[in-house]
Amino acid sequence: MRLEEALRRIGGERPLVHHVTNYVTANLVANVTLATGALPVMAHAREEVEGMAGLASALVLNIGTLDGGQVEAMILAGRRANERGVPVVLDPVGAGATSLRTKTAERLLSELEVSAVCGNAGEVATLAGLSSEMRGVESLSGDAREAAEGAARAFGVTVAATGEVDYVSDGTRTLAVENGHALMGRMVGSGCASTAVVGCFSAVGAGGDPETVAGALACFGLAGEAAAGVPEVGGPGTFEPRLLDALAALAGDPDRLAGARIRVVDRG
Amino acid sequence: MRLEEALRRIGGERPLVHHVTNYVTANLVANVTLATGALPVMAHAREEVEGMAGLASALVLNIGTLDGGQVEAMILAGRRANERGVPVVLDPVGAGATSLRTKTAERLLSELEVSAVCGNAGEVATLAGLSSEMRGVESLSGDAREAAEGAARAFGVTVAATGEVDYVSDGTRTLAVENGHALMGRMVGSGCASTAVVGCFSAVGAGGDPETVAGALACFGLAGEAAAGVPEVGGPGTFEPRLLDALAALAGDPDRLAGARIRVVDRG
Amino acid sequence: MRLEEALRRIGGERPLVHHVTNYVTANLVANVTLATGALPVMAHAREEVEGMAGLASALVLNIGTLDGGQVEAMILAGRRANERGVPVVLDPVGAGATSLRTKTAERLLSELEVSAVCGNAGEVATLAGLSSEMRGVESLSGDAREAAEGAARAFGVTVAATGEVDYVSDGTRTLAVENGHALMGRMVGSGCASTAVVGCFSAVGAGGDPETVAGALACFGLAGEAAAGVPEVGGPGTFEPRLLDALAALAGDPDRLAGARIRVVDRG
Repeated sequence: MRLEEALRRIGGERPLVHHVTNYVTANLVANVTLATGALPVMAHAREEVEGMAGLASALVLNIGTLDGGQVEAMILAGRRANERGVPVVLDPVGAGATSLRTKTAERLLSELEVSAVCGNAGEVATLAGLSSEMRGVESLSGDAREAAEGAARAFGVTVAATGEVDYVSDGTRTLAVENGHALMGRMVGSGCASTAVVGCFSAVGAGGDPETVAGALACFGLAGEAAAGVPEVGGPGTFEPRLLDALAALAGDPDRLAGARIRVVDRG
Repeated sequence: MRLEEALRRIGGERPLVHHVTNYVTANLVANVTLATGALPVMAHAREEVEGMAGLASALVLNIGTLDGGQVEAMILAGRRANERGVPVVLDPVGAGATSLRTKTAERLLSELEVSAVCGNAGEVATLAGLSSEMRGVESLSGDAREAAEGAARAFGVTVAATGEVDYVSDGTRTLAVENGHALMGRMVGSGCASTAVVGCFSAVGAGGDPETVAGALACFGLAGEAAAGVPEVGGPGTFEPRLLDALAALAGDPDRLAGARIRVVDRG
Repeated sequence: MRLEEALRRIGGERPLVHHVTNYVTANLVANVTLATGALPVMAHAREEVEGMAGLASALVLNIGTLDGGQVEAMILAGRRANERGVPVVLDPVGAGATSLRTKTAERLLSELEVSAVCGNAGEVATLAGLSSEMRGVESLSGDAREAAEGAARAFGVTVAATGEVDYVSDGTRTLAVENGHALMGRMVGSGCASTAVVGCFSAVGAGGDPETVAGALACFGLAGEAAAGVPEVGGPGTFEPRLLDALAALAGDPDRLAGARIRVVDRG
């Protein structure tokens, strides 16, 4: 499926994307999902996560403010999604910073069939068993390409490591996504938001394909470029609402995805 | 009480509106409450919900990201509000999507004296026992008027079913509110926000009257119309801050409520 | 350390500021921390708060939506920070409104070595044992200077009581900060945000010095003044993104802190 077609299908089918996520960026993630054309729902209670996952077309697990109860809810929701063949996208926020986060990401990857992992270079390097430097949920170092390829091989899953250039690999083929803008790194939650866009694209197509993941990241990056070009933007605060506007405009005109800069760096 | 007078009293008395609510739209709900002229407070801990409800002039229960503990807290807060004769407004977010949400909404309606229910057409149709189509927390179908009238009769409470036109009914009389703008449906939380405004108006007057609820929805809809008319608005992202500005401007000049388009569709 | 030098160090060293905080303003607090130049992380699970506090350069405890579990997490995180000599900043949101909040603030102050307390006049007056009027988390009355000096003496800690003029006292010396703008009081979370800035400044210097706290409040107030002067600001909604822009601009040009209006009102 071509990228434009996928975005058109999101707006046409309005798939439900179920997020089990953190309370810091939940509002942004929901708005990003809606602007991309899908319908967001946040539900975390053990009493209902299976029911909600049973209705959704994609499940996004984000461990940004996890605790023990939430991990159990993620497992329950993930199993239900797996039973139904619905894609599960994992954002391992802060893996490498605390052992709870590293172990939870590994546990989710071992107990669930995850279709794609999206994290920053440090988080993904941690999963790959490479050295990395995390400061809280920020990556201070790490080779994004090496991290993506290593984690993809280690877990047998498609992995995106985001950074100035995003790398997406299934362990064999590797793509580079060159869209985006520096302002995205200056607002809180751009990583969570890009993972949400991956969830939206996964909901209408081959969630585990590097092309799907790279296409979603290119879409989000293009929105960031458009927003950064708006003259009224004066910093990270005014950038965020313009990013949502740009994403909604893109969703309304999928042909603009022609601006995606996705490069094959390893054909596998 | 005329609508303008109610809004003027909110700004003059600055009533405390206690929200037990979801973490996705909590910030928006708090800002909407403040922009309307009231003082918001969010408190959910079983250890303090009764104490906080004991200080408040209205209680708003929103089940958008509920779990078992939160339901107990809502019951405790609601009982305290009932003892004090303080209005309780319920937003049954996602009723119809999962059984936890449907049952929780029904339980709150049966164990508490709720003064008004505000939901979208699908949520309210679910409560009315009518067929409806929910996708997560979005309503995909449902006759809002029939839903409002049916749920009002079923539970003996004033019910608003929001949509392109909002319908408010106490089971006998039914009002239609024609204010609003399509952009409101493109930002996350406009439903939660409109319920918060109902909470503010309930705090200074007859919380269970269809006129109060319809007036509050008209106020919020008017703010949406004003915000949508701002030339700088380029999509859902830039719309949201302008909506808060417009609501604050309206609260500062209640005579603008003359633009409310409330129509009696059934005199009872 | 001069104020400009502190802000320059925040941007240069990018210290990790660990927030155990409320879900209403968590996004704003994270963005404010990032705009000031530091790296925010939110973590509240008992399983990881000690680990995260072990990585951080400052810990900010905000009781805005506390519950029993969160209080235990705050104690654990605070003890770890104390062991490492890392500054702990407390925002006693809603102290005086419910006994849970008042007692929790007092407990944190008695069980932890807190370097600075930042609250509004009513919250701080409550801690000082003075009469005050709280409505939810808003202060309706209270002499900010008397409150700051009283609480500082009562707990042997540097205390800021914010209001139209902020007062900062260690019980001996008292400073007044005259920066800020009325629009700051019309958006939800400006108090939480100012405490976050105090956390950032504490992370690179003498966290318990009245000068550090007053300097941070002046920095945040200056950003508010700059944002309020932007012609596009039309109310509290459009003010908030401009405040983040202004804070980021200030962080990028620390010499603008020359506009700080800090006055010694008692030399001690």
